[in-house]
Amino acid sequence: MTALPQVLDDWYALCWSRELTSHPRSVRLYGRPLALWRTASGAPAAADDRCPHRAVPLSLGQVRGDCLECPYHGWQFDAAGACRSVPGLTGTPESPGRRLATHAVAEHDGVVWVWGRAGAAPSRAPYRFPSVSERGYHTVLDRVEARASVHAVAENALDVPHTAFLHKGLFRGAGARNEIQVVVRRTGRTVEAEYLGEPRPSGLVGRLLAPGGGAVVHFDRFMLPGIAQVEYRLGDRSHLLVTTALTPVTETQTVLHVVTTFRLPIPAWLVTPILKPVARAIFAQDARILAAQTRTLEAFPDAHFYSTELDALGPHIAYLLRAAAQGDSADATPPAFEKRFSMRV
Amino acid sequence: MTALPQVLDDWYALCWSRELTSHPRSVRLYGRPLALWRTASGAPAAADDRCPHRAVPLSLGQVRGDCLECPYHGWQFDAAGACRSVPGLTGTPESPGRRLATHAVAEHDGVVWVWGRAGAAPSRAPYRFPSVSERGYHTVLDRVEARASVHAVAENALDVPHTAFLHKGLFRGAGARNEIQVVVRRTGRTVEAEYLGEPRPSGLVGRLLAPGGGAVVHFDRFMLPGIAQVEYRLGDRSHLLVTTALTPVTETQTVLHVVTTFRLPIPAWLVTPILKPVARAIFAQDARILAAQTRTLEAFPDAHFYSTELDALGPHIAYLLRAAAQGDSADATPPAFEKRFSMRV
Amino acid sequence: MTALPQVLDDWYALCWSRELTSHPRSVRLYGRPLALWRTASGAPAAADDRCPHRAVPLSLGQVRGDCLECPYHGWQFDAAGACRSVPGLTGTPESPGRRLATHAVAEHDGVVWVWGRAGAAPSRAPYRFPSVSERGYHTVLDRVEARASVHAVAENALDVPHTAFLHKGLFRGAGARNEIQVVVRRTGRTVEAEYLGEPRPSGLVGRLLAPGGGAVVHFDRFMLPGIAQVEYRLGDRSHLLVTTALTPVTETQTVLHVVTTFRLPIPAWLVTPILKPVARAIFAQDARILAAQTRTLEAFPDAHFYSTELDALGPHIAYLLRAAAQGDSADATPPAFEKRFSMRV
Repeated sequence: MTALPQVLDDWYALCWSRELTSHPRSVRLYGRPLALWRTASGAPAAADDRCPHRAVPLSLGQVRGDCLECPYHGWQFDAAGACRSVPGLTGTPESPGRRLATHAVAEHDGVVWVWGRAGAAPSRAPYRFPSVSERGYHTVLDRVEARASVHAVAENALDVPHTAFLHKGLFRGAGARNEIQVVVRRTGRTVEAEYLGEPRPSGLVGRLLAPGGGAVVHFDRFMLPGIAQVEYRLGDRSHLLVTTALTPVTETQTVLHVVTTFRLPIPAWLVTPILKPVARAIFAQDARILAAQTRTLEAFPDAHFYSTELDALGPHIAYLLRAAAQGDSADATPPAFEKRFSMRV
Repeated sequence: MTALPQVLDDWYALCWSRELTSHPRSVRLYGRPLALWRTASGAPAAADDRCPHRAVPLSLGQVRGDCLECPYHGWQFDAAGACRSVPGLTGTPESPGRRLATHAVAEHDGVVWVWGRAGAAPSRAPYRFPSVSERGYHTVLDRVEARASVHAVAENALDVPHTAFLHKGLFRGAGARNEIQVVVRRTGRTVEAEYLGEPRPSGLVGRLLAPGGGAVVHFDRFMLPGIAQVEYRLGDRSHLLVTTALTPVTETQTVLHVVTTFRLPIPAWLVTPILKPVARAIFAQDARILAAQTRTLEAFPDAHFYSTELDALGPHIAYLLRAAAQGDSADATPPAFEKRFSMRV
Repeated sequence: MTALPQVLDDWYALCWSRELTSHPRSVRLYGRPLALWRTASGAPAAADDRCPHRAVPLSLGQVRGDCLECPYHGWQFDAAGACRSVPGLTGTPESPGRRLATHAVAEHDGVVWVWGRAGAAPSRAPYRFPSVSERGYHTVLDRVEARASVHAVAENALDVPHTAFLHKGLFRGAGARNEIQVVVRRTGRTVEAEYLGEPRPSGLVGRLLAPGGGAVVHFDRFMLPGIAQVEYRLGDRSHLLVTTALTPVTETQTVLHVVTTFRLPIPAWLVTPILKPVARAIFAQDARILAAQTRTLEAFPDAHFYSTELDALGPHIAYLLRAAAQGDSADATPPAFEKRFSMRV
């Protein structure tokens, strides 16, 4: 299994807005620690979590007004990375070698986004979660973690065939299978699968979504660098969007910021309390398999994935990630692609 | 210390027959996981413990009739490696890329043997433990594990000089030493040491073996890829064979399947209950030394073993393992060898 | 951060004299285990902690008169490395291949010193702690350990600017700062900083040192391969020397043997009981920062240290260590150096 290269030139969800205070946090992206903090004015800020002086993590320090202060010698840096104080120094603190490597930060819909490459200007805006603030919709946030690559987690989150098997009862049932059509469409930074003629899933989740049964509109989508989205619609009354922002903590460890937005015929106060436990039960089954997959790939370094057409999105996600890592720019858009096939669900 | 290369083209004892059920087991050979299971017909089967589809361990799945089912998407494989079901697929499941990498399996004398190389036809039969089913003999099975290479464990199991020192009292005594003759004979896949004129060991084990004392017939033998055998005879009444099948879990971790077969002048019901505790007490002393040796070899990567003639078998075991790894075939037989020397025991 | 190479041709403090008995100890130097023991005559001895026969650690064995005995086969070695017994062997035990790799050992002022390279004759005498046995002086010994390189620990131990910040209150205060002069002098194997016009430190330690206040004589010194010394003097009555011998257990783990020698206007029975707890509290703050620095350097392998003139000794310590590792001889003396600058303390 060839390792998927790193996509640095893009936005990653690093924490929820409400988690970011003036007390600095340390998070990792592709194994490198980042310090996140809020200045006295409330603005979010991010930097490589190492003081340029003696490589001590700034996340162990404190916010002082507009600056973050190193815990070792008390050097202070503003959110743009300029060194503003070197205690004991008789000269001026600012100097090119003393600059802190900062990262662009954005905050939307309760999520703090950070650009992966230090010192780079973002070439696009971060992803916006759809419908979050739309009237009649309810939103539930959750964060979970998996011992697997962004690719493995994204493929798993958007994979239909395993649901009837691994999540039997919880998600899809094990009953008679119907043949449906799948359309896969890939554009520059996105790949989606549309499922045509799919009956309502027969498990617990399906019954909540559409107590009256019926056919569903169902899309699974992946957007660079790590947005995985499942969308279900049943007529005008039921609409469910599970959008997950995947963040590579390391190459084999992924954090999932999950934003579930819904409008359902049953009241939200009935749905909300069971949504998280059910979603976590499903995820626990996936996380166990993903961790076992990662261990197996480590034990068999030459392992390949032999896909069938049922692997509607996985190979395309790998393709998009590789292209993004090589070009590392929005211009290097891979060619568009469309394909149809049958699946029994 | 030059690392001993891997011998893949041979049989390894992977578990006891009674341990193998329709519930799959995962074992490692040279660090690579293998799945072992019994089909509905009771036949043992083995394969690389990874689904060709998404590299998930099949040992986490279930046996379904003649097939092993992957826990992720429910793919099923028969014991020959053919893919027999891909849930959701409209076409035929069987396809060259979907084949499971299986290993030849054999079962004898309560041991399950697996051929080390996937997809290869065995070029010989597995080892048969002698006397196990012979009239008048009793057999005790035990499994232990050591943090050391197959070479280090085999040399330790067949080494006479350390017994009087490390196992003082338990095995050999610390009394006056007698000079005996040792004959070492090496053939294509075997090396043995015969000890001529050896008195009955003076420790606890010696007294059990031959309460009346006397001279013993004593052989230590190594057979590729990892059979270590100690044989003691005192006239017609006492015969003890301790045969150990060594399996390289990793290059520095070895599992020992120990088959002890005996015919003694004292009743088996007296011997059997104390055999395992005494053997385990002796082994605990060896295992501590072997683990310390492995740690030391890791800390001094350029360490060598300086042998004396007392190291009757160790250098020959290394020689046979190297030859087997290079030729990896029964044809590449190294030249025969014979040598005599004196030892004080 | 370029890794600092190993300095093997020099003396390292490996334990206190009172810790070394006839029961062998195992210590590590640059990751390689050494066995230390005292022979029956009381002489200290050191060797690579591996038997030349089968690489088992001799520190698991026992001292027998003048010899150290291996726990595996009972081979015995004298303090000069000669093999003196091979149990069971009919011939003579001594042989070139059976020599144990020994290290030169010296013992002074309660410290056991070992030369870093096996089989080498020391080209100089080990360091002598000053004033330890002088009349009117008291000495306190302590040992601590840090998860950082010898360079990082030495720089930290001799760094003034961090004390007012990291050790605020304990060591230096946070009050108004005075500008003082610093003179840095580097010779062949030593670099020192002299602080001119420094007021008495305002924290707890300063008050103990000089209850009446006043200006201090203050030197910080580093001597190859790892002596870090802080010296304070106030007139004739107060003299404090904190001398630390740094030993590289691994490249990122350092043991500190700390010898604190003092003559103060307050009685020693008042100073001694609080010296260790206060010193350990200060060290705990340093150790936390040093471990975080080491983790950060591991996460950012290309990190550099951007120094200012306030980093009076750190860059010179790195320079001396690199020169010593390359030349690995007292002859390869780097050029002398002197520099003056201002610092606000």
